[in-house]
Amino acid sequence: VSEDAFARGRPVPAEAPERWVPRLPHVRDVGDLDVLPAGFRAAGVACGLKADGASDLGLLVCDEPEATSAARFTRSAVVAAPVTLCRERARLDGLRAVAVNSGNANAATGRMGVEQAARVQGAAGMAAGVPHDRVAVASTGVIGVPLDADLVIRGLVRARAELRPDGAGALARAIVTTDAFPKQVAVDVDLPSGTARVCAQAKGAGMIQPGFATMLCFVQTDAALAPETADLLLGVCVKRSFERISVDGQLSTNDTVLLMASGSSGVRVAPESADELRLGEALDHVLRRLALLCVRDGEGARRIGRVVVRGGDGLAVERVARAVANSPLVKTALFGGDPNWGRIVQAAGMALAGGPEALLDVRIEGVEVCRRGAAVPVDRIALAQAVARSEVEYEVDLPGEGAETEVFFSDLSYEYVRINGEYTT
Amino acid sequence: VSEDAFARGRPVPAEAPERWVPRLPHVRDVGDLDVLPAGFRAAGVACGLKADGASDLGLLVCDEPEATSAARFTRSAVVAAPVTLCRERARLDGLRAVAVNSGNANAATGRMGVEQAARVQGAAGMAAGVPHDRVAVASTGVIGVPLDADLVIRGLVRARAELRPDGAGALARAIVTTDAFPKQVAVDVDLPSGTARVCAQAKGAGMIQPGFATMLCFVQTDAALAPETADLLLGVCVKRSFERISVDGQLSTNDTVLLMASGSSGVRVAPESADELRLGEALDHVLRRLALLCVRDGEGARRIGRVVVRGGDGLAVERVARAVANSPLVKTALFGGDPNWGRIVQAAGMALAGGPEALLDVRIEGVEVCRRGAAVPVDRIALAQAVARSEVEYEVDLPGEGAETEVFFSDLSYEYVRINGEYTT
Repeated sequence: VSEDAFARGRPVPAEAPERWVPRLPHVRDVGDLDVLPAGFRAAGVACGLKADGASDLGLLVCDEPEATSAARFTRSAVVAAPVTLCRERARLDGLRAVAVNSGNANAATGRMGVEQAARVQGAAGMAAGVPHDRVAVASTGVIGVPLDADLVIRGLVRARAELRPDGAGALARAIVTTDAFPKQVAVDVDLPSGTARVCAQAKGAGMIQPGFATMLCFVQTDAALAPETADLLLGVCVKRSFERISVDGQLSTNDTVLLMASGSSGVRVAPESADELRLGEALDHVLRRLALLCVRDGEGARRIGRVVVRGGDGLAVERVARAVANSPLVKTALFGGDPNWGRIVQAAGMALAGGPEALLDVRIEGVEVCRRGAAVPVDRIALAQAVARSEVEYEVDLPGEGAETEVFFSDLSYEYVRINGEYTT
Repeated sequence: VSEDAFARGRPVPAEAPERWVPRLPHVRDVGDLDVLPAGFRAAGVACGLKADGASDLGLLVCDEPEATSAARFTRSAVVAAPVTLCRERARLDGLRAVAVNSGNANAATGRMGVEQAARVQGAAGMAAGVPHDRVAVASTGVIGVPLDADLVIRGLVRARAELRPDGAGALARAIVTTDAFPKQVAVDVDLPSGTARVCAQAKGAGMIQPGFATMLCFVQTDAALAPETADLLLGVCVKRSFERISVDGQLSTNDTVLLMASGSSGVRVAPESADELRLGEALDHVLRRLALLCVRDGEGARRIGRVVVRGGDGLAVERVARAVANSPLVKTALFGGDPNWGRIVQAAGMALAGGPEALLDVRIEGVEVCRRGAAVPVDRIALAQAVARSEVEYEVDLPGEGAETEVFFSDLSYEYVRINGEYTT
């Protein structure tokens, strides 16, 4: 748990609540979060993009020539230069290195931005000793400012010298922006064919409502995966993790998640095997924990919520869950510890606007507050205590059956306004 | 200008900016805002719904048996009892009275809520001396609390005794909730056939992103209108006013706008006449001014913005304008006086997610900051000064031509969080 988080007055621990991400018997947390899976090395250095001289450049390298990978990027129609470059000029199923900077998103920077990203890709390939098209680049930070690639390239030379098998923490620290703490999860997974390690580092506290991937997240495993398996597992797990969270309802220009598999453990995960199922469960576990860490660390967040919507159809539950999770009225009520469920039915009604009248059931922490659209008498004191905890669960039942979804979200606080009102281009 | 507004630290005057709602030569502000058009009387009293004893019940009566009217209500799928009652049990083309309370929205109150609204309708009909089905009821305030109709009915008896031709101010004050000031506009309109008066009172500072009508707004004119004319004019003008604003992106359960025409002036406005055109312009002017007053008074608002989006198609410009206006990142930047246009292109990219890459032009107060998706060098000091004023205009050009829209919005401040974090059910 970061001291920063507590300094900012948060009562919540920097860990995903177990009731929302249960532990799994075949998945064990690794004692030293910084030790990467076999076959990987990483480093983080300060290259000068952040004005305060903090670490702002990460380099991740896989030493196995046969490494496989998978990737997901933002669905935004305005994408950052590194995303464009990765899509157009990287072998996304065979990545062996990642160069990632914070302090500048290299977004809305035009052709020049893509050229700068290409220069970084080339330099990172030399630093990692791999072909440039097996390097992914990623950036996060302010939008609309040209990236000084010379700073990054000089930093890569230094990062190369610092590459270490226990460099995960250095990488995680190099990618933070408004994050209060770096986000890492590392587990060992017992598969029928042997034990594999899965590590992941993520950043993200604002501009968080991933639409296909999210913010930045790098996942490594020493299992051996076919590229198709890597892609399948990543796709499924991203949908259940980063695509189910929101801090501020804002899809980013830079969202990138990369899974890299070195195969160094010798554990081969065949398609449609028990190994694949188990590894998928572990990856799901890891990514959901990381996604919840992003919500925990949502800009200014003091409390986090989970809204579960059932009934209706797939489109209806998705719309209602997003509307509740992104309502500034719901979020300020969560911040204030106010069980103001009227704002939940209002948000649901907005989400279903134009359709037939929706008579909803609403429960907060299991306490029914609204049945068939009408208020239910409740113990207000018990309810107030329930919403004053660090996590609050809301359930909404729409008419009909057939669909269910969830969204995790952070509250809206004074601190959110301060962070985003004072943050300057 | 309200003293409250200044006490809350706002640099903005409580009037719509003339550059966004130009004065019209045939429309003159009335000196005494409280004087209703001929044929109308109004009153406001405290009936006990608001805990602080403030005015919370308004009664509006038209004394002309031939009065006509038109109405628009929220598109939400969760509607308040008074909206249900008006739709099902009121002659919306021939309304002669309105009973409106603040302090309780009578929403999410089930069958009992509709019955209470019906009791209020009946009592208001007796107080106004008109059939109950010519009475509209409206409510605003907290959702999910049963309405004590007995309080309202006793209040109506007192309100009846206070009905006055100069009661517009009393009505406007009776409907405020988190509003910092009551919202009234009153104009005389020179039509070819004579002079008519248009008065309107509105409330609304939060839960404001009307989808079909908005919050509460009552419009009176002493022109004589066929019901079809009233409906046509109201429909067109609502689309250009209340449907183009947002405080918090939240469609309400209670939005109601009513236009009533007494005909007492003797000025008859025939369909497709020059009179109709001129009166429509005046109504447009009045409703846009009122809509902008709601934005000015957006909960906690210190600055207001207008985003104009051109190009693309109708759906694209609407999505982009709403995404920009409702982005908490854009709104906190507006609050902070930060020309952080990266958040504008990010919001636009989100709105167009899944589509082709969108290379945007962005201007702030006429200063080009982004061209074809890439940053343009700007005079940062001049730009910072431009966004520090009380109103800021943003222009976004999408690829292509063919559509244009605008949304007016308020900023997101500490005060917004305070108001909504402390507001209790």
